[in-house]
Amino acid sequence: MSLQLLKALPHLRSATLAVRSQLARKTWSEHIATKVFFTTAAASPSASPTQPPTWGAKKQKRKVNLRSAAAEFIMSNPEIEAQLAPLRERVQEQGNLVRELKAQGAAELDVKKAVAELKARKKVLEEKELALTPSVVSFDRAKMEDLLKRRFFYDQSFAIYGGITGQYDFGPMGCALKSNILALWRQYFALEEQMLEVDCSILTPEPVLKASGHVERFADLMVKDVKTGECFRLDHLIKQALEKLSKAKEATPALQAECEDIIIKLDGLNKQELADVLAKYNIKSPLTGNDLTEPIEFNLMFATQIGPTGLVKGFLRPETAQGIFVNFKRLLEFNQGKLPFAVAQIGNSFRNEISPRSGLIRVREFTMAEIEHFCDPVHKDHPKFGNIKAEKMTLYSACNQMDGKSAAQVEIGAAVASKLVANETLGYYMARIQQFLLAIGIKPECLRFRQHMSNEMAHYACDCWDAEILTSYGWVECVGCADRSAYDLGQHTAATGVRLVAEKRLPAPKTVEVSEIVPNKQALGKTFKKEAKNITDALAKLSLEEITKVEQQLAGDGQYKLTLADGQSHELDKNTISVKHSSKTVHVEEFIPSVVEPSFGIGRIMYALLEHSFQCRDGDEQRCYFTLPSLVAPIKCSILPLSNNTDFQPYTQKLSSALTKAELSHKVDDSSGSIGRRYARTDEIAIPYGITVDFDTLKEPHTVTLRDRNTMKQVRVGLEEVVGVVKDLSTARTTWEKVTEQYPLFEQQEASSK
Amino acid sequence: MSLQLLKALPHLRSATLAVRSQLARKTWSEHIATKVFFTTAAASPSASPTQPPTWGAKKQKRKVNLRSAAAEFIMSNPEIEAQLAPLRERVQEQGNLVRELKAQGAAELDVKKAVAELKARKKVLEEKELALTPSVVSFDRAKMEDLLKRRFFYDQSFAIYGGITGQYDFGPMGCALKSNILALWRQYFALEEQMLEVDCSILTPEPVLKASGHVERFADLMVKDVKTGECFRLDHLIKQALEKLSKAKEATPALQAECEDIIIKLDGLNKQELADVLAKYNIKSPLTGNDLTEPIEFNLMFATQIGPTGLVKGFLRPETAQGIFVNFKRLLEFNQGKLPFAVAQIGNSFRNEISPRSGLIRVREFTMAEIEHFCDPVHKDHPKFGNIKAEKMTLYSACNQMDGKSAAQVEIGAAVASKLVANETLGYYMARIQQFLLAIGIKPECLRFRQHMSNEMAHYACDCWDAEILTSYGWVECVGCADRSAYDLGQHTAATGVRLVAEKRLPAPKTVEVSEIVPNKQALGKTFKKEAKNITDALAKLSLEEITKVEQQLAGDGQYKLTLADGQSHELDKNTISVKHSSKTVHVEEFIPSVVEPSFGIGRIMYALLEHSFQCRDGDEQRCYFTLPSLVAPIKCSILPLSNNTDFQPYTQKLSSALTKAELSHKVDDSSGSIGRRYARTDEIAIPYGITVDFDTLKEPHTVTLRDRNTMKQVRVGLEEVVGVVKDLSTARTTWEKVTEQYPLFEQQEASSK
Repeated sequence: MSLQLLKALPHLRSATLAVRSQLARKTWSEHIATKVFFTTAAASPSASPTQPPTWGAKKQKRKVNLRSAAAEFIMSNPEIEAQLAPLRERVQEQGNLVRELKAQGAAELDVKKAVAELKARKKVLEEKELALTPSVVSFDRAKMEDLLKRRFFYDQSFAIYGGITGQYDFGPMGCALKSNILALWRQYFALEEQMLEVDCSILTPEPVLKASGHVERFADLMVKDVKTGECFRLDHLIKQALEKLSKAKEATPALQAECEDIIIKLDGLNKQELADVLAKYNIKSPLTGNDLTEPIEFNLMFATQIGPTGLVKGFLRPETAQGIFVNFKRLLEFNQGKLPFAVAQIGNSFRNEISPRSGLIRVREFTMAEIEHFCDPVHKDHPKFGNIKAEKMTLYSACNQMDGKSAAQVEIGAAVASKLVANETLGYYMARIQQFLLAIGIKPECLRFRQHMSNEMAHYACDCWDAEILTSYGWVECVGCADRSAYDLGQHTAATGVRLVAEKRLPAPKTVEVSEIVPNKQALGKTFKKEAKNITDALAKLSLEEITKVEQQLAGDGQYKLTLADGQSHELDKNTISVKHSSKTVHVEEFIPSVVEPSFGIGRIMYALLEHSFQCRDGDEQRCYFTLPSLVAPIKCSILPLSNNTDFQPYTQKLSSALTKAELSHKVDDSSGSIGRRYARTDEIAIPYGITVDFDTLKEPHTVTLRDRNTMKQVRVGLEEVVGVVKDLSTARTTWEKVTEQYPLFEQQEASSK
Repeated sequence: MSLQLLKALPHLRSATLAVRSQLARKTWSEHIATKVFFTTAAASPSASPTQPPTWGAKKQKRKVNLRSAAAEFIMSNPEIEAQLAPLRERVQEQGNLVRELKAQGAAELDVKKAVAELKARKKVLEEKELALTPSVVSFDRAKMEDLLKRRFFYDQSFAIYGGITGQYDFGPMGCALKSNILALWRQYFALEEQMLEVDCSILTPEPVLKASGHVERFADLMVKDVKTGECFRLDHLIKQALEKLSKAKEATPALQAECEDIIIKLDGLNKQELADVLAKYNIKSPLTGNDLTEPIEFNLMFATQIGPTGLVKGFLRPETAQGIFVNFKRLLEFNQGKLPFAVAQIGNSFRNEISPRSGLIRVREFTMAEIEHFCDPVHKDHPKFGNIKAEKMTLYSACNQMDGKSAAQVEIGAAVASKLVANETLGYYMARIQQFLLAIGIKPECLRFRQHMSNEMAHYACDCWDAEILTSYGWVECVGCADRSAYDLGQHTAATGVRLVAEKRLPAPKTVEVSEIVPNKQALGKTFKKEAKNITDALAKLSLEEITKVEQQLAGDGQYKLTLADGQSHELDKNTISVKHSSKTVHVEEFIPSVVEPSFGIGRIMYALLEHSFQCRDGDEQRCYFTLPSLVAPIKCSILPLSNNTDFQPYTQKLSSALTKAELSHKVDDSSGSIGRRYARTDEIAIPYGITVDFDTLKEPHTVTLRDRNTMKQVRVGLEEVVGVVKDLSTARTTWEKVTEQYPLFEQQEASSK
């Protein structure tokens, strides 16, 4: 929603906001499978504002089909293409209209309306496309959530106190998975690219977020129940109300079509238009039936006070990026003044969502991993681009979106060469993002990069691509990758007077005309006393433009009124200041670096990964497991003594020590229960390998069995060797296939109970 | 200070608070070398409340002597002992008085006063002790801080906006150091002990922190300037005012003694006593000379609102522990119901300090690593205690503190055997804490474990030891290690009605008498309609005691008034409920587990480590460096081409790729500048090893030099071998000594410039 608000202020809006708001906000296709908050809330009269819609509850048994994103499939299937053709045409027609309007320089409002219609048509096309693609897998979200909760991957925070919506605690398995993803991220980005990693404060004073634009414009629209004060996110509320209306018995087909049309266009409506919808359909509070207030802009930042006076206002940061920008000078210095360089930061950010839902997809507290790559705006090539230029990627270009076409498979080298992707640095990061996501286990057919259409993009950004992952919530934006130009450094420079710039050597020295204001220190001191220093400092900061103005005014009425940062004004005249012109030979040129920003939403990536790796055993719907790659699996190995025979204990302990020494996380399950049942328990928490100590282990030569989670196959391995094999498997130095070739298969144990 | 407040409420006070308040609060000996905030603020009239006292500023050149904590030295030196003897006696005398008062069951106030006097005497002794111990090293804090700032280990957050007191951003070197310390922590604790690591929310709703006691009692005392509203931490203010008073020309010796006496006893004074001091010396605002308010209790938690209604109050967590306690049930379940098990959490916590100072020692936002080890209260032995029982530790027992004796070297096995340390689990963690701290590079002679005296300890804790590290700020508590008994789980059980308990099998089944309330559901439904279910639920939660009360009341006037959690009351009678007695055979027993809690303040540990590893080259005070062990050093290796001759480039690049592949963080410094100067730059950021590519590298067989930061010695190593050597050095598989035996020394390069 805030994206829409920003669109209403195109010359002001900030890429920070546009990019970030997308990152934490629902993409339009997410609607597909979302359960609406209010339905749940209304069904449970005792639901308090902090009481969340239950997740993982048994009753929410709904199957969702996850479908392949492979554009190839659709494009090569004439029957499906025939069904899609008219929809594609409608999108293209509207896309052309938008282009035309822009070319004609039509009024902003007209362009906006045309774009909203374009998006609506695109949405219809995309939904049809998804519906016609064959299922990759039939996915039961409720079943997965039940498992995630039961084995404590994560759960609602403070559950014993009733829980808080939009906040989750990661249990041992979720925490380890997250740590492993972040460790790999560090290796893929911070280490591989020799980035400077920083760790900045969460509590941020107001002036910083004023400069970044968040104080003024980081908001969603909401309405309040006039009597109870209950708050509702406006777009959610309207959607639910209209859905209810169109499902009512008395709804005419005309009304149904009208409602559907509004729901589709909802994301494109502005504050007034939404207020009009509210009034037209006489929408009331779904909980009480009471009247609602006019739409209110609600800032999504958590506010607090720093220090005891109550006078220093601060916010919990809504993104980690600002911490990097405000430290730019020191970071450049650390890099010995040289560009390009990249800075990475992993940390928590906070957004006070009006009514969070969709599990880990939309939360109030979340971990981000952000990179700010600073470079010369005129040299955006990347030294390592050659390494990745053959990477094939599914790109959903703005142009294809406007033309009603699907995403296409393109080599990133070709995409940059054809200028589809703006520059090498942006292309390099897109390819690296893809490599990272695939390495942790995201399905390639469920990953695409969607380009922002020019109307979605902040005005100063030159190109922006979102890595979107297909989940049961639809396509979810998980990583943003934007060329943000010089915006952020410029804003903080303007706010602080500290020049956040870099220098480069000129090919040849050049002579420049310099204008400067020369203060008559004696006269200033006499007239302004203690203030003289502040005045001199302020004069030194004036831009060339302002100096010219000073000169004109002094030449005019002989007076210049200087306003200081604290708001005080002082009258200066020819006696106290003069303007001096000189020429100077310069060898270097100052410039504000451009920023390319890949921004990862770790919780969203993790959620998508869990969906993609969730499986049930053939023929046994109750035996569910996660096929997480061992690289990110929370625990690498289990140790299971066949029974609680005490003879097994020394072997179990020995294996445990050896695994610890090899830095392999592991879990000993010596509980009672059949070995098959215990395997099933370890499968549930995604342990890729299992070592079983059985009666043959007691005999010489001592051996154990090693089991693979995905295939359920087992091999017999020497006791002394097995830890080495698990280490090699976990670090991808070998594969399970190779292991099965090397060691004898073992087929007896799983079926037999103790 | 809050510890003192808690002491005023001994039957209420919470160990959480006692332990934690210590963690972030100054220990009494910290005073020794602290610069007072107000001095700085007063000196700079433009200082705003957010404007911090500058740190790392050149003017603050003060040498501080770091001294050995080795009690042996003192005890074995009769001359020093002679000087200390009368002071020891004074402490012991007072210690005995305290014991006597307690034995007699004297009034609480009398005990408190005696304890305050005891502490004051202890302080005098300890200061003298420190003053008489020979310097380990002469440490220049300003010089170190200047380096930390210049090479961006860390710096004040939002510095370009003027900075915020008590908040720091970690730059590339600080962030990497912190990451490495945390990675090692995970290995030492989470992996080695197979702990369950969790990652819980920072934003915490009010009821949780009400139950933990933080809402009511986590506060410091402050006073405000009645005109400007400027706030001052009361103890700091009094100290500064009295110091000024006693230094004034007109101060009589009597007044000086009086002031000194109050300053020493300051930590022991309560609110009223502090108010009396304020009044007696007519203390005014140091900034304006205005009158001050009465002392006010200021809660140290940052408050905010969760959600848009403004009705759900929340706080930023002041510690990470509560997230573990509220998830106890799920964690126990994850561990298949078995005790003992330990849960670890690394995360940020927040405290709104009134006037933070002392750099990283006292901050508003900080990283903690906490462990909650849950165990059976009657079995606190530890299976791995044998592994560490020979660990020698410097223990400063409560008894020695009361007797005016020094800390003593004791084997932890002996300390547990003699009951000096309460149990094996506590002793095990103390030893592991020590092993960890020494592994990262803390000097053993600057580490001691100080036991809380009974008056410092929360009433329910049975033993508590703080790992204190000697820094230029004195002894700083860096890790708390407490046996917290069943307090926290009990509090949350009481607040939520969710029983946070474990079960254990009884040796033999036993028969117990059960009393329960039997609701007449039909009658209840008829009378109370919708409320009937809430009533039944509430009845099921009544304790045995309450059931007895119900029975008595029903037998009396036949009525029982039940009050629900929401405050509503209902009258029940014999018609709606009855009490049933029966006997039941039980096989298991429920109990609230005990908790042993090691709690690490990562920023403090990091700061102490930086102090301990800060060095200057002999004969060159300007060449400073950090001797951080390679295990935690931010960057493991540098690559320095001898000059910017382009022939070196392929070798530099090859080495860089090989180091990346070996997962070794490294830095290429191909800037101009003599090799010696570049070595000095890498020394400053603690890079332990440096590879130099020189003209011999170009010849076959290709070789490079490898330099050791601490000794500045170099060896000549084959190009293909060198990365392996660095990897072995960084992972402690070899030592520099061994490397120098294996490879030829190289002695030419460092002196020569390019």
